[in-house]
Amino acid sequence: MKRVYLDYAASSPVDPRVVEEMQPYFGKTFGNPSSVHSFGLESKEALEQARSRVAQLIRAESAEEIIFTSGGTESNNLAVLGVAYRNRNRGNHIITSTAEHISIMNLAKHLQKLGFQVTYVPVDRYGVVDVGKLGEAITDKTILISLAYANGEIGTIQPVREIGKIARDRGVYFHADAVAANGKIPIDVVEDQVDLLSLSSNDLYGPKGVGALYVRKGVRIEPIIFGGGQERGLRSGTENIPNIVGMGKAAEIAGQEMGSEGKRLSGLRDRLIKSILEQVKESYLNGHPTRRLPNNVHLRFSYIEGEAMLLSLDMEGIAASTGSACTSKTLEPSHVLKAIGLAHEEAHGSLLLTLGRWTVEEDVDYAVQVIPGVVERLRRMSPLTPKDFWSD
Amino acid sequence: MKRVYLDYAASSPVDPRVVEEMQPYFGKTFGNPSSVHSFGLESKEALEQARSRVAQLIRAESAEEIIFTSGGTESNNLAVLGVAYRNRNRGNHIITSTAEHISIMNLAKHLQKLGFQVTYVPVDRYGVVDVGKLGEAITDKTILISLAYANGEIGTIQPVREIGKIARDRGVYFHADAVAANGKIPIDVVEDQVDLLSLSSNDLYGPKGVGALYVRKGVRIEPIIFGGGQERGLRSGTENIPNIVGMGKAAEIAGQEMGSEGKRLSGLRDRLIKSILEQVKESYLNGHPTRRLPNNVHLRFSYIEGEAMLLSLDMEGIAASTGSACTSKTLEPSHVLKAIGLAHEEAHGSLLLTLGRWTVEEDVDYAVQVIPGVVERLRRMSPLTPKDFWSD
Repeated sequence: MKRVYLDYAASSPVDPRVVEEMQPYFGKTFGNPSSVHSFGLESKEALEQARSRVAQLIRAESAEEIIFTSGGTESNNLAVLGVAYRNRNRGNHIITSTAEHISIMNLAKHLQKLGFQVTYVPVDRYGVVDVGKLGEAITDKTILISLAYANGEIGTIQPVREIGKIARDRGVYFHADAVAANGKIPIDVVEDQVDLLSLSSNDLYGPKGVGALYVRKGVRIEPIIFGGGQERGLRSGTENIPNIVGMGKAAEIAGQEMGSEGKRLSGLRDRLIKSILEQVKESYLNGHPTRRLPNNVHLRFSYIEGEAMLLSLDMEGIAASTGSACTSKTLEPSHVLKAIGLAHEEAHGSLLLTLGRWTVEEDVDYAVQVIPGVVERLRRMSPLTPKDFWSD
Repeated sequence: MKRVYLDYAASSPVDPRVVEEMQPYFGKTFGNPSSVHSFGLESKEALEQARSRVAQLIRAESAEEIIFTSGGTESNNLAVLGVAYRNRNRGNHIITSTAEHISIMNLAKHLQKLGFQVTYVPVDRYGVVDVGKLGEAITDKTILISLAYANGEIGTIQPVREIGKIARDRGVYFHADAVAANGKIPIDVVEDQVDLLSLSSNDLYGPKGVGALYVRKGVRIEPIIFGGGQERGLRSGTENIPNIVGMGKAAEIAGQEMGSEGKRLSGLRDRLIKSILEQVKESYLNGHPTRRLPNNVHLRFSYIEGEAMLLSLDMEGIAASTGSACTSKTLEPSHVLKAIGLAHEEAHGSLLLTLGRWTVEEDVDYAVQVIPGVVERLRRMSPLTPKDFWSD
C-alpha cells in the first residue's frame, strides 16, 4: 500500500547524512568528554564542534550559550523553571499566551501551584499574540515572557522581534520556544533580542532525545537536573555524544538548505491548501495565511470529527494528525484551537498535515486526491451535516 | 600506538548488536508513539518491547513499572526529587550515605536548601553502609532512603536486601541507584524490596542519553519534567525510540550474558589486582575485597598523585580514571575516598581501572606491565617519597 507521511511535526526521520555522522560515536569514539585521557578528549572535541554548529544556526554570539538537553520539552522546562526558581527574589510573575505548547501550559500551571502568578495573553483568530496586551501585562514583578517562536500546531509565526524589543526595554527575560520553528525559518537570537530559546534536534531531522537551550550570556537560571555539573552546571548527566553530534550535523545541514527547502515546502504547502479549499465545500484554513511555517497545513472541515478523519486517512496510507501528538491522548479539542476562537465542533473537525524534507509532489497529489473523498464520506455519515448541504 | 581502554565506568562503547537493532528506528520506523496512525503504532510496539526487556533484567513484576528517562542522572533526580516533592506532607527527612554518586550528593544538598533534613549514614573502610546506623536514623518524618546498589567508584556492593527489608518494615521508600551495578550483577527488585531503582543504558553497553527508573506499582512520585504526559505522566517529552530500543536490546543481552561475563571479568579483575599489589610496594586495594563489582579495580599508591598517573598512563595508551568522570573537573579528592577514611594524600594517590565487555587478557597484561614502571617513575620524582623508600 502507498504510505504518505504528512505528520512531520509529530516526528521526523533522521537525515541519512546525520545517521552516518553519528555512527563512529557509538563504538569508536565513545569516551566521556569529562575524562582526562585521549578517548575523553576526542569526545570533548566532537561535543564542542556540535555546540558551535547549533550556535551558528541561530546566530548566537558564542557557542558557550548553547546548553544541550534531552529534547525540546526539557529545554522548555529548563528555561521556564530555571528562570522562575533563580529569579524568584526579583518577582513571581510570568507571562505566556493561551496558545502555547502543552509543556509550557503545564509548566505555567505547575508554577501557579508553587505561588507564581501567570498571565495568559490572548491571541487573535490567526493565533498571533496580542502584543499590546502583552506590554500591558508586564508589571514590576514580571520576570519572564515565554512564547512560541512559531505555533507548532497552526503554524503561525509570532512577531518575535517586536516582543523581544518590549521584553528587553522592560528588563524582562524573553524565552522563545523555537521547537516548531527551528530549521524551518531563519532565527537570529541577537537581532530578535531573545534571552532563552528552546531547540529540538528531531525537528531539524536530527536524532530524538537531544535538544538545546540557548541561554544568553549573563542570563541567570537554575538547573532542574542535579549531578556532575556538565553543561556549565546547567545540565548534569554524561553528555549523549552520538546524538549531540547528530544534532550538530542536522543544524549545519538545516542552515545550508533552509532557504531552498523553505521555498520548496511553502510551494507544496500552498498547493495543498489551495487544492483542498477549492475542492471541499466549507473547508477553512486555521492559522495565519501568510505568516506561517513553510511546512504547516492546518485545515478545518465542518460537520466531521478529526479522529474519524485520521483513521480513514490511515486506511488510505496517509499519516496525519489533528494537532499536537503530545496531546493526542485526550479526545478534548486542542486548547490552541479554542484560543483562536473556534467553537468546540469547529475545533473537532480539524486536520493537521505537516510536510518535511522527504515530502514530494506526488505525496501532495495523493493527499489532494484522497482527502476530499474521505471528507465527503464522513459527512454523509455525520448526523451534524445539514440535510440541504448536498443540494447546492 | 597501543590503546587500552580501562575506563568503562566513565563511558562504554555501544555493543554492535545494539547499534544494529537501533538502525531502523532512525529513518524507517520513526513515528511518534503517541500518533494514532500506523507509523505511530509501530513505534509504540517498539517502545513497549523495550520496556518489557528492561523490566525483565531487574525482574520487575510489570513492564509498566519502567519509566524511560534521559539517563542515570535524570533517573536519580526523578527518584529523589519525585519522592520528596510528592510525599512532603508525610515528612521531610531523607537518608542517604556519605559515599554516593555526585548526583545523589547534590540532590541531597539541593533538598536541604528547600528545607528537607538529610542524614548521611557513614560507611565502613570498605565502603559498606552501616546498616545499624541506617536503622537508627529512621524517624517518623523519614520518607526516603537513597543508596547506591553498588558504589561506582570503589566497586563495593551494598547489603541491598538487608536495607530493603528495613525500609519496607518501617514504611520508608527505598531508592537504589543501580547505575554502576546494572548488567554487572543480578538484580531482583522484588526480592530486594526496592521501591525505586535507577538504571543507565550505557552501563549496559547500550546507547547514551537514555536510562530508566523502576517505580514499583503504588509508589507515589511527582514528575520533574512537565509536558505532554508521556511515560504515565512521569516523564514528558517525545520518547527517544532508537535509544530506548537500544537500551532494551542491551538489557536483553546483559541478562543473557551476565553470568559468564561476570565470571570472565572477575577473573581478569582479580589477576590485575593481585599482580599490581604483588609488584608495587605500598600499593593497596580500595573498596571491598570480595563484595565487589566484577569489573572494578580501585588501587592506591603512596606518595604520588592520581592526575599525574593518568597523564603518564595516557601517554602509554592506557585510559584510566582517578574516580568518577563526573567529578573529574575538580582536583579535590573524591568524597567517596574521604568517606572510607582515607587521608587527603592517600585519596590523591588512587587509580580506578574499570574493565568491560571488550577487555581482553592482553589488556590486563599490558596494564600489569606498564603500571609498576609509571608508579616508580612518579615516586622517584615525588617530594613525598621518603628517602629510605628505595633502600629496602
